[in-house]
Amino acid sequence: MAIQLNDITRQDNTLAVLRTLRAQGPLARVDLGTLNGISSATVTSITSELLKQGLVVELPHDTLQSNGRGRPKTLIQLNANAACVICIKLSINDVQIVVGDFTGQVRYSRHYPLVTLSLSPEGLSDFLEAKVADIRADIANTYRCFAGICLAVQGVVSPSNGTIIWSPALSFRNASLSERLANTFACPVLLENDTNCIAKTLAGQPGYSAYPNLVVIMLGYGIGMSVLIDGKPFVGANGSAAEFGHSKYEPGGALCACGRRGCIEAYASDYALYREARAMLSLPPGDSAHPSAEQMQALTQLAMQGDPIAKQIYDKAGRALGHGIANVLALFNPDMVLITGSGIRGYEAMRPSLEHTLRDALVDELISPSHLETCPWDRDMTCLGGIAMTLDATERDILTALPAEPT
Amino acid sequence: MAIQLNDITRQDNTLAVLRTLRAQGPLARVDLGTLNGISSATVTSITSELLKQGLVVELPHDTLQSNGRGRPKTLIQLNANAACVICIKLSINDVQIVVGDFTGQVRYSRHYPLVTLSLSPEGLSDFLEAKVADIRADIANTYRCFAGICLAVQGVVSPSNGTIIWSPALSFRNASLSERLANTFACPVLLENDTNCIAKTLAGQPGYSAYPNLVVIMLGYGIGMSVLIDGKPFVGANGSAAEFGHSKYEPGGALCACGRRGCIEAYASDYALYREARAMLSLPPGDSAHPSAEQMQALTQLAMQGDPIAKQIYDKAGRALGHGIANVLALFNPDMVLITGSGIRGYEAMRPSLEHTLRDALVDELISPSHLETCPWDRDMTCLGGIAMTLDATERDILTALPAEPT
Repeated sequence: MAIQLNDITRQDNTLAVLRTLRAQGPLARVDLGTLNGISSATVTSITSELLKQGLVVELPHDTLQSNGRGRPKTLIQLNANAACVICIKLSINDVQIVVGDFTGQVRYSRHYPLVTLSLSPEGLSDFLEAKVADIRADIANTYRCFAGICLAVQGVVSPSNGTIIWSPALSFRNASLSERLANTFACPVLLENDTNCIAKTLAGQPGYSAYPNLVVIMLGYGIGMSVLIDGKPFVGANGSAAEFGHSKYEPGGALCACGRRGCIEAYASDYALYREARAMLSLPPGDSAHPSAEQMQALTQLAMQGDPIAKQIYDKAGRALGHGIANVLALFNPDMVLITGSGIRGYEAMRPSLEHTLRDALVDELISPSHLETCPWDRDMTCLGGIAMTLDATERDILTALPAEPT
Repeated sequence: MAIQLNDITRQDNTLAVLRTLRAQGPLARVDLGTLNGISSATVTSITSELLKQGLVVELPHDTLQSNGRGRPKTLIQLNANAACVICIKLSINDVQIVVGDFTGQVRYSRHYPLVTLSLSPEGLSDFLEAKVADIRADIANTYRCFAGICLAVQGVVSPSNGTIIWSPALSFRNASLSERLANTFACPVLLENDTNCIAKTLAGQPGYSAYPNLVVIMLGYGIGMSVLIDGKPFVGANGSAAEFGHSKYEPGGALCACGRRGCIEAYASDYALYREARAMLSLPPGDSAHPSAEQMQALTQLAMQGDPIAKQIYDKAGRALGHGIANVLALFNPDMVLITGSGIRGYEAMRPSLEHTLRDALVDELISPSHLETCPWDRDMTCLGGIAMTLDATERDILTALPAEPT
């Protein structure tokens, strides 16, 4: 019994060391001990084992930043090539596949434009299997271990049973793609909502870790939300919680991609903004039902430059968002609502009406406990979050797959 | 170390036995063992100790229901008079004080009608202190131990720091009443939202324990909500989550008691229904801003009898509720939404428009995972829940306060 307990503690400490290195980059052994509350003898023993396993490396002395006193400390960092994971991001008309290394960084990324709405479950599975097989063959010699796959999907998914319940990118419903991938590649396959991946990335950042009850709203082609309660994603009874985009603004209002009327998304998503604009304004040509980044940029610019029609469109979107955020504050009482996504480009045009609607909707006691902030959309936070989740889910497998080589 | 661990396990088992007896009534020792996964030797030892402590009693043989085979088993039941708690329910223009016994049942209840909105924090504290002191003196000889007090309040409260943030029953805000009561009566004082108390009562019933993600909506003078996630009340960052009554229906719509416009409560609460009705219909006289049960009964009856104006009022209330429940399903994805409260008397008049609005608002994938049910309002579920919460919070204190007497 005693030995087993020690083994569990030892593995927990080892995982804590690996996570700290992933979050903070190279660190001296003494800092690894302090940050994790582990004795220096234990840190030395753990890092020695991890060095033998090839999971960490020592940074050569000449790359060290000395603090100018005494001799420079040797730093430990993760061996980026020890293991890798693949994240597949499924959006409307775009499949992105990325490879993440053991440090959690994106090392390879490719977009595959395809008409996702015309795919059958088998067609999509065939496509993903072929592309993942190609990429796995390409990277086989780079990484020592292939740990798992994350499928990050726009829409409603059930992470626990691997089912895509409903996605605006797909014409089929209630399909399981994870099982076939798991069988073909003999690895765990996570299914996640794309906004939950973004929340995972954001919650890991020092600036936001002080807000354990965090709501992340993603503006883009659709509108997604992720709710963290005490730092953990809240997914509800079967995974479809936090469907902010389909919470309601106006009964019987604008038509939404879901087929119902008056959803927040039907006012403030890219397609909704562009739908209002295209009849009245001169905008770049293209598929106006699925506006490109360039098309949205042109529309946002008009609003920012004061075009009265564009301003009115963003004004209405801001009112819908403010109304929806009022409901989120009344129902979730979060520490912070953080708005991000590619649609953040138009936030300044929506902000006045959003803030006015919010103040008008709720008593101060329900607004003041929650910070409202925006976060720039300058990195691929979906894929970074999917990679982080997959590394978290497979870290014990990786430890087992890479035993220490005898010295 | 070993002895301490055993002590903890022993106490946990003892508490499990007490909770089982509270939930299920008198039980044979063998059933107490089976239900809690405890050996019969341990049950015998625990019940022997509890008998010495006077916390349980053996049921005399002649009251036993024999199963007709063999000799009847001796049943163990809680000693109702071992301990008591007080629950104070604070509603608009009514303070109710009840005494709950060790089995969790209400043994004494009294309503004090008073104009709550005219009270200062000190005035209310003086009043509660005097009444609780009187009742404590009355019951001093009945119960062996006075364990604690629960303050169940309509409105937004912060259970963790004991502050009433905002209540429709009170004109002051951000007041702490619990601390003074705790000091005066030298006992723990819980502060709870009234709907959370109701949810506690309901979640303890066999019919609902299969729904760990349970949303309870209380219709009455105001509209309250409690959200249980994995069986635990969700209160948000500072206790003001689940403010369903102040989530929004129409931007700029009907005026709400909170001072804002368009809240669900401003359409479907007693005061909102009565406000619409009083100008057009012949109704019992009285304070129409705070309609009595009799006044509401008269209005409901008109709607049920097909009066077109009353029907229209309940129809609109049903639309507002359906819209609000759509948001709750989209955001919380609960196993069940359970509607109760005194306002349930008018539910049948609201149901058609409520159900129609809900189906219209959301895709089936967001509706079908959640059951929608009503629960009759035939017991004082607020006070029962407050008593249950206080017994839960003080059970270890009670065990300590009543040591076993030497046999």
